[in-house]
Parts: sequence; C-alpha cells; structure tokens
Amino acid sequence: MTDIAPHAEGSLQGIRVIDLTRVISGPFCTQMLGDHGAEVIKVEPPGRGDIVRSQGNMVNGLSWYFAQFNRNKRSLTLDLRREEGKAILYRLLDDADVLVENFRPGVMGKMGLDDATLRERFPHLVVGRINGFGSTGPYRDRPAYDFIAQAMSGFMGVNGSAGEAPMRAAPPISDMVASQNLAFGISAALVRRERSGQGDIVETALTNGLIGMMGYLAAEYFATGEVPTRTGNDHPMLYPYGLFQASDGEVAIAPSNDTMVERFLGALDMLSLLDDERFADNRRRMTHREALREILDRAIARRSVAEWIEHFNAAGVPCGRVHDLRETFDDPQVRDQQMAMELDQGAHGKVPTTGFPVKMRDAPAAIHHPVPGLGEHTEDILAELGLVDAEYGDLREKGII
Amino acid sequence: MTDIAPHAEGSLQGIRVIDLTRVISGPFCTQMLGDHGAEVIKVEPPGRGDIVRSQGNMVNGLSWYFAQFNRNKRSLTLDLRREEGKAILYRLLDDADVLVENFRPGVMGKMGLDDATLRERFPHLVVGRINGFGSTGPYRDRPAYDFIAQAMSGFMGVNGSAGEAPMRAAPPISDMVASQNLAFGISAALVRRERSGQGDIVETALTNGLIGMMGYLAAEYFATGEVPTRTGNDHPMLYPYGLFQASDGEVAIAPSNDTMVERFLGALDMLSLLDDERFADNRRRMTHREALREILDRAIARRSVAEWIEHFNAAGVPCGRVHDLRETFDDPQVRDQQMAMELDQGAHGKVPTTGFPVKMRDAPAAIHHPVPGLGEHTEDILAELGLVDAEYGDLREKGII
Repeated sequence: MTDIAPHAEGSLQGIRVIDLTRVISGPFCTQMLGDHGAEVIKVEPPGRGDIVRSQGNMVNGLSWYFAQFNRNKRSLTLDLRREEGKAILYRLLDDADVLVENFRPGVMGKMGLDDATLRERFPHLVVGRINGFGSTGPYRDRPAYDFIAQAMSGFMGVNGSAGEAPMRAAPPISDMVASQNLAFGISAALVRRERSGQGDIVETALTNGLIGMMGYLAAEYFATGEVPTRTGNDHPMLYPYGLFQASDGEVAIAPSNDTMVERFLGALDMLSLLDDERFADNRRRMTHREALREILDRAIARRSVAEWIEHFNAAGVPCGRVHDLRETFDDPQVRDQQMAMELDQGAHGKVPTTGFPVKMRDAPAAIHHPVPGLGEHTEDILAELGLVDAEYGDLREKGII
Repeated sequence: MTDIAPHAEGSLQGIRVIDLTRVISGPFCTQMLGDHGAEVIKVEPPGRGDIVRSQGNMVNGLSWYFAQFNRNKRSLTLDLRREEGKAILYRLLDDADVLVENFRPGVMGKMGLDDATLRERFPHLVVGRINGFGSTGPYRDRPAYDFIAQAMSGFMGVNGSAGEAPMRAAPPISDMVASQNLAFGISAALVRRERSGQGDIVETALTNGLIGMMGYLAAEYFATGEVPTRTGNDHPMLYPYGLFQASDGEVAIAPSNDTMVERFLGALDMLSLLDDERFADNRRRMTHREALREILDRAIARRSVAEWIEHFNAAGVPCGRVHDLRETFDDPQVRDQQMAMELDQGAHGKVPTTGFPVKMRDAPAAIHHPVPGLGEHTEDILAELGLVDAEYGDLREKGII
C-alpha cells in the first residue's frame, strides 16, 4: 500500500468534466479522466446522491465500493428534474469541456438536453455516453446490466468448462470495458477539439464493448463458421498450456510456441518427450493431450508452487501463481507498481483503492482530490459560477441543491 | 454484416503512429487509433513479419486472426537490428507523433532507443508501451502472457464455480484491456501535447490493467479483509439474479434492486412470494436462496427463452439470451450497431471483423485502409521520407527492408 502525494499535473489538466453518471460504468470512466488531471464535477441528486454511496461495505461511514470509483472528483448536488437545477447545469456546461452521462437513451432529452440542443447550445462540448445496447436499434430502450451484456455479447457462452453451464466473469467486465472505451473516445475527441474547436458526441455500449473484446474468438468463428465452445482452462489450440498441480497448489504455465515448449520440457528434464511421436509437435500433442497431461502432472506434483515458479522463470518459461486478491495485493511486483494505494479520507480514515494502470513519465496520474462527500463542493462550485450566499440558501430551501 | 464506406476523417486524423508491436496487445491498441483516423505505420521484420500473419485460420491466403487486429494500418518492413534499419526508424520518428511498442523491458534500449535517448532526440513524441508486469520491479524481466496475467491479477481466482478450479476467461482479456488502457493513455498524452508541445512516455502492463478491472471485488476485499471466492453465476450479494432454465435453454435475468425484483416476480405472477417471510427482503432471500431457486426454476421451465425475453423486457426486467458467437453476430441489435463489418481485401476476398465499439457523431471511426500485406507500403513510405528507387534496391538486396 503506497501513499501517493498530491501532484499538480496530469495529461488532462485544464479539462473540465461535468459528470452525471452513477453506479460503475460512468464513474469508472470519469475517475480515469480525473486520475489523469481532469477536473471532474460529479453531479448528484440531492438527498441520497449516487445510489452506490449506500451500497457495499461501509467503513467509518464511507462505502468503500463508492470510494473505489469516485476519487479525484468534487461533488455538487443538483435536482435536474427542476428548472432551477437545469439552469445551473446549463451554466456549468457553458464552461465545461466534457459532459458524461450513463442514463438510458431518451432520459437526457427529457431533461431538455437532447442531442440537437446539446450540439446547438454547446458546440464546443465533448459529450460522452454509455448505455446498454446503443442509442439506436430494436433494444435501445431495454434495461441493461453487466450480467445481460455478458450473456448477449457471446462472452458468457465461451467462459467456463466444457459440458457445464455458461459462466459469467465475476467482475462486471462490461461496465469496466465500456468505461475504458469511453475514456479513450473522449480523449480522442478532445485531441480533435484542440485542433478544430469542435466538440462531438461519443458513445459506447456495454454489449458493443464486450463484443470488441471477443476479437480473437470472433476471427475463428468468421473463418470457420463454427462457434467456439467452452474449453475451461485448456487453450483451444495449444498444449501444454494451462494450470498444473504442484505439491501445494496450482501453477499457471503458458508456453505459447515450440521454443517455449522446449524450454518448459527442458526445465522439467523431460526434453526426450519430444522424441515420442505422440508429442513431437503441437498438433500431435493436442491429439494426445490427456496422455501428456498425465505425465506432466506427475512430474509437477513433485515440487511446490514456489519452487516451480522460480525454476521456470529462470528457464524463461512464462508461469505464475494463481493469486487470490490478498496474494495479488501483497505481491512485491504489485507493490512496486503501486497497484493499491491509500486515499486519506480524513474522518473516514485511510481508504485503499486500486492504483493507476496507466503510468506516464512526465504527467503522471495522481490523487488530486479524495472521494467527495455528497454535495461537499456544492457551494464552492456555485460560487465559481458567480452565485452568492443568498441564492444558495434559497436553492437549498427548495431542495434543488 | 455491414460494408462501411471509406471516410475521410476521424478524431485522430493528422496523428502519425509508428507501430512496432506484434501479436495482440499492441496491434489492438494501434488499430483503435487507426480506426479513429490516426495514420498507423506497422513496422515489421522483413521476411515473416508479425508472427500472427501465419497463425490462426488462413482464408484465401490471409490469416483472419491477423486481419482482426490490423486494419487501418500500412505495413513497412524494416530490420531494426541493423544500423540502416535503425536510421530509417529514426527518420520516421522525426515526423511521427506516437511510437508504440510491446517488447520486453530492455529490448528498445538494445535498439538504441532507451528512454533517455527517446526523450532527448524526440521530445515531441508520445511513446506508448505495453509489457507484462511493468518496467520496474522484481518481475520486470519475466516473460508474460495473458494466461499468466489472468492468474496473477486475481482474476482467475474469482472466475469459475465454487468448489472447482480457478478458471481463465476464454478471450485474452489482459491483452485487450491493456490495449484499451494504452489507447486512452496515448490520447490523453496527445491532448497535453497539443497544449504544451511536449511528448511523454505512457506505459501499461497486462497485470496492472486486469488489477484495475478487479475494482468492485477489490473494494470488498479491502473493506472486509476476506478474499472473494468463486461463486459461479450467482451474484455474491443479490438473489434472484443469474441464469434460469427455460423450456429450451437458459435466460439471463438480472434484477439488481428491490424494484426490479418486484417487477420480475410480478411478471411471473408470483408477487406473493414477497409475503413469504423467507423471501421478504434480499438478505433473507440470500439465506433461503436454494428454496427460492427451486420455485423460480419450476415457473420458468414452463415457457421458452424467446417468450420469457419478450415478457420480461415488456415488464422492464433486465434479461437476455446467452448467445454463442453466431447468435451474437446474427442479432438484430448487433447488426444495427454494425458490430461486425466486412473489409474488402481485394484478392483475399471480403473479410469480416468486429466493428467499432466507440461511436462518434461528427468524426466517426471508419475503414481508412484494409489490412496490409507484409511490406505493402514499404516503397511508398520510404519515398515519403525522400529515399529514391536506387536506395530501396540496395536496402532490399541487403535484406533491410
């Protein structure tokens, strides 16, 4: 766990983002923008805010699930269903570079912010949006969740063991992938805007993002017309490759070509297996996979995971331990890479979150703001817009902020 | 399957990318940049090129695996181990905006392109890089592959069924996620460069990217100190949620809160289950999950997948079919979103690839170039550098291009 000192800069410094998103897919995207220096204003409904504030494990009064996706933001409460709330949003957008939303298609229109209005009134704005299936097409109005996107993208159909049910991935990968796609798309649109002054509307969908991740298997399907099936940990086209049982647990070993296979068998002192005509090349090894598996499992069962990892790495064979999350975050490499880091949340204490996967040399990602309390920056932000105390009082009384 | 007409523009138009990457993780990243208008020059070793050119299913002399990750690029052959080859690379970098590589740490240094040299000689350049574990730390020199990153990131440990072995995801998700992270990082660095003129070095690692994807479960581990376990398709905290057996297959149903659960049970005409004290709230439903599962399975077995999908969607309950890849690409929504599209590869015929997950209104992603043959643009690109015919002949004779 590493304390990251506040840092003044980031690649997106000077970019102001108005963030209407909630739950995971939008907030993870805007957090990526904030990590890299953008100023993110999270707009939340007065009263309860982003629903995730009250979900997951609460520690010292803070949801650590919420904390995971909302560092580097300030929070403004605003009732966007009321005219006074909308008026403030419009004023914010006048000075903003980016607007991000993850409502269902049509909801923005009901708030008076349909695409035509957005383009006309805020031509400089990059509008980023995430939805379930896209904003056109027969399913555009369907409610979508990660589990459904995993099912419909084809991901679930190939994940899992042969002969067993389709299997979701445990993390909400469609939300996470959509966030990454949108962070890329927004940044690319900002590159264009720096040159042209023109904004754009950038959209991605949970399902579309996961379909994009299926490329390797999609190519196989397109070429053969046969649908890839679930093959568990076995690689559909390579052997040896996968999980092997050492004396005290599993070792992941991934020799991806003949040179690596030679290194692997050499490290086991079993190079002579390649003289056995059943195992002489990958095609034959695939045919006689179970026979070879039995021989390899017997050999690997003789030593511990730690011994094998050291031994195979010394021989240049890609291998690793199957970590649970504790082992992941305790790993010396993961510590070196600061992939867990603590936020100083004042009265809520120190809160660990995952670190920055994108490292920059000159303009690194950094903690610019801790996770905001609900509406913590409402008055600051309204003051920046030129509103005075009496106006907040009135807005607060009416429940608009 | 949709034919996309060539389009003149994209958000990254005018950005020139020199792409030294091979296999999946780098090429998927540079393809994203190319899809959005960047000019990508893929630099390949003379003779065989990117190893993926000869892997996967070959159709009419083209690897469709290679095609999946290499549209919107031109190809230049260049032997980067020879001085003449390096000299040409340096000339390319003088006019380039971005350099992308996915060698193991240290390999660029051996080619005379260590970080200090890159920064000094090409201060305007955004250098993007993907490696296995990061370029510092105890594992920096270890060979890394997707399977190993899935194991060490903690992903494999939570993917799969309770009581069974850890399970990899079938697609190479760490390669894909790293590509997305890098495409974001490069674009963010370009935003800064537009303002400051300064390049940067942007790095991501297969393992770090997947750890970033574990956020939701990491928050649970950080808060409780307990490591999340494999729970198969069951949501660790919600029920009903998951796969249900209809008369002719599985339906994915994901009611994520009490309102959705009411809609779901209402659509089943079983709202009275909420009066049963075993099922009155989510906590009690989790305790009595197996009893409720039996009741729901019995009800859902009475009708077909198609009937339930229509019925639940009409009731606003998030649901969907578990698609194999054929069903995914045949789906009317996926067609509407153009998530498969055909490249016109001339003599190689029409080649389908996955579509663009990031949609832009004014500057959309488009097919600017089909998938290049090995070295197809070598002479064009050298001519752009000012080399003349006699010089290519000499370079070709020496095997440098």
